[in-house]
Amino acid sequence: MIEQHTGTAELIEIAQAARTAARRLVSLSTSAKNAALLAIADAIEARQAEILEQNRQDVADAEASGMNPAMVDRLLLTPDRLKGIAADTRAVAALDDPVGEIFDMTTRPNGLQIGRRRVPLGVIGAIYESRPNVTVDISALAIKSGNAVILRGGKEAQRSNAALGAIVSDACRLAALPEGAVGLVRHQDRALVGEMLKLREYIDLMIPRGGAGLVRFVEANATMSVLAGGYGVCHTFVDRSADLNKACRIAHNAKVRRPTVCNALDTLIVHADIAPRFLPQLAEEWGKAKVEMRCDDRALAILQGKTERAVPAKPEDFGTEFLAYVAAVRVVDSLDEALEHIERHGSGHSEAIVTEDYSASQRFLREVDAAAVYVNASTQFTDGAQFGLGAEVGISTQKMHARGPMGLRELTTYKWIILGDGQVRPA
Amino acid sequence: MIEQHTGTAELIEIAQAARTAARRLVSLSTSAKNAALLAIADAIEARQAEILEQNRQDVADAEASGMNPAMVDRLLLTPDRLKGIAADTRAVAALDDPVGEIFDMTTRPNGLQIGRRRVPLGVIGAIYESRPNVTVDISALAIKSGNAVILRGGKEAQRSNAALGAIVSDACRLAALPEGAVGLVRHQDRALVGEMLKLREYIDLMIPRGGAGLVRFVEANATMSVLAGGYGVCHTFVDRSADLNKACRIAHNAKVRRPTVCNALDTLIVHADIAPRFLPQLAEEWGKAKVEMRCDDRALAILQGKTERAVPAKPEDFGTEFLAYVAAVRVVDSLDEALEHIERHGSGHSEAIVTEDYSASQRFLREVDAAAVYVNASTQFTDGAQFGLGAEVGISTQKMHARGPMGLRELTTYKWIILGDGQVRPA
Repeated sequence: MIEQHTGTAELIEIAQAARTAARRLVSLSTSAKNAALLAIADAIEARQAEILEQNRQDVADAEASGMNPAMVDRLLLTPDRLKGIAADTRAVAALDDPVGEIFDMTTRPNGLQIGRRRVPLGVIGAIYESRPNVTVDISALAIKSGNAVILRGGKEAQRSNAALGAIVSDACRLAALPEGAVGLVRHQDRALVGEMLKLREYIDLMIPRGGAGLVRFVEANATMSVLAGGYGVCHTFVDRSADLNKACRIAHNAKVRRPTVCNALDTLIVHADIAPRFLPQLAEEWGKAKVEMRCDDRALAILQGKTERAVPAKPEDFGTEFLAYVAAVRVVDSLDEALEHIERHGSGHSEAIVTEDYSASQRFLREVDAAAVYVNASTQFTDGAQFGLGAEVGISTQKMHARGPMGLRELTTYKWIILGDGQVRPA
Repeated sequence: MIEQHTGTAELIEIAQAARTAARRLVSLSTSAKNAALLAIADAIEARQAEILEQNRQDVADAEASGMNPAMVDRLLLTPDRLKGIAADTRAVAALDDPVGEIFDMTTRPNGLQIGRRRVPLGVIGAIYESRPNVTVDISALAIKSGNAVILRGGKEAQRSNAALGAIVSDACRLAALPEGAVGLVRHQDRALVGEMLKLREYIDLMIPRGGAGLVRFVEANATMSVLAGGYGVCHTFVDRSADLNKACRIAHNAKVRRPTVCNALDTLIVHADIAPRFLPQLAEEWGKAKVEMRCDDRALAILQGKTERAVPAKPEDFGTEFLAYVAAVRVVDSLDEALEHIERHGSGHSEAIVTEDYSASQRFLREVDAAAVYVNASTQFTDGAQFGLGAEVGISTQKMHARGPMGLRELTTYKWIILGDGQVRPA
């Protein structure tokens, strides 16, 4: 009870300080923000030993608690990884500052000059799990876009986050950033997450980073706007006119390059006309990576005897994000049937068609309702850097404000500015 | 119980039909959408008698129930008002179609062409009170931007809304728009509003139009995104360097042109250096319109004996949206003090400075966090048509997605489109 009370007091204090800092960050010059980012990068390198020592204890605790090795690996920091984090921070410093851009400026018939000026959102909240690099990553993106940020990392990384958070804070102080621009919630009481989600008055945008459970919880309980993402059920449709070699390369890359990312292929849809030729060809490629193919009846009939990795699909396999060397496979009779399947089972992340048919490509681009719609390329390109955004804040699967990979610009909004010389509006 | 059950079934049916229609609306040509809008405008004129008859009954009921005359006036339709509604609908048809625009298209080093394509949001929900013109207004904006729409008007206008809704539906059918593109919830059970706010699966965006109570309720209870607005506590700050004649004209217009709109002046802030000259001058102008001035001590001391309309302000007058011939008045010693006052009491709608000082104007533009920030003009310009947007969907006081006056473009989102010729992503 007392613990929670203390945690709440700390949270409110951090939130108030962030709000105050946000007011000053709005007017901060790009060079002042860049100086802070470079100071953070330098400090991460200079204070490497301190970070690694705290991280070692987090990792030891995690291993002792029986955490699975993949999760422990996410938690782990090494000198190389720290070098990477510092380099990423310097890369953000090198990006253009989105704040201050004036656009859509016109002069109205009455002489009023009216336009929009890009401004920071204000205060960003981040709730995340495991990976301690998020502490630095989100801080850098927030600072560069002129936002204050409140960080709430996971219990398993608490010492690493505290060390990184202290380094970020010290560097910000050194660079004369407003006090409170980056706030780290240290108390680990789980109830604090719920309380943070109520702070609509202080936090303009909440960014959850972690597993589907965390993201869903934040979406369901936040009283402020949320930029949710990180979840994708992605389809690749191989049309009857597809170049089968291209299709094989694309489907293989979309599944196998990294099966654990949200833009990885989950379901392969194949046109019946080419399925008898294409599926065995792909099964051979996928077989090398031991991809399990969960097939509908028609796909299974084609693959029977040609691969050991084809098994009957259960209905729930369609619409599942596997994050593993597993793919659902379905045979359809038409583009329409493929579009219907994607509409029913897709999550609005990344969807691809492989086709040489112009009209089919146009229909797919127009009708598929997803953040990223591809013709003849691997869905694994859905990524801020690949899309040319420089840094990636996350991948949004919502429709409002920002969709797909989000860069610095998506951490801003605009205000209308109106320059007059005494104009009044007629009745 | 049975009544609610029936209402719910109707609501779900309308929502499903809207979702299905939305899929087809995405690909509809601009001319097909315009044809529907012109058919609606024609039908409103052709079936005027039918609408007016239903409206007459709504008005009679409202009067019988003792509704105040201003509210009854909002409800009232006349041949002239119907002509206006038809003209507005034709004006929307004449606007550019925002859908299909492709922007930020670049070719990446690997040859992928990546860009953004503007697309409709999907299904828009509208919950509104009194004014039956909203039924046509929102329908026209939704259709033009390629969205399906679900309308839920107020009980007091139910017959008028049913008549207009039927006319819109008939016209849409005639113009071969997808069935269900415009759905009108006929059941008036109040619990249905709450149920509608839960339909996140079907409705992408909810637009409340009405009093502060309705807007707050929708904001607090909606599970989908909300475009809220219609509420504004607006300040005009007369700086010490202001041209007092300009200032007087601007403050007078901002309050008196229409006191009942959300962009009207609520609080006047005056720099102490010019308050003794400016306040009596303005009091004389405002006096002609019988504007009550609720003054802080210093303003009151200046105005004492010079006008009968100056009274002491209560603390809660600062931060109140008056919607009447009333203004709060405060004297400050600096721009900083004015900025602090606006930050504390403003609602993020429209804020103005009157000044001849370049640096003061720049600071005000940069530091005030509001949808519309003015130098030397009346805040009553905050309006879609005045800002050159053609049609106005509403005025957003939130920061995400859209801020200030929203046009057709703000009823859209984008998707990334990626055109490849077999690209795969390297490990």
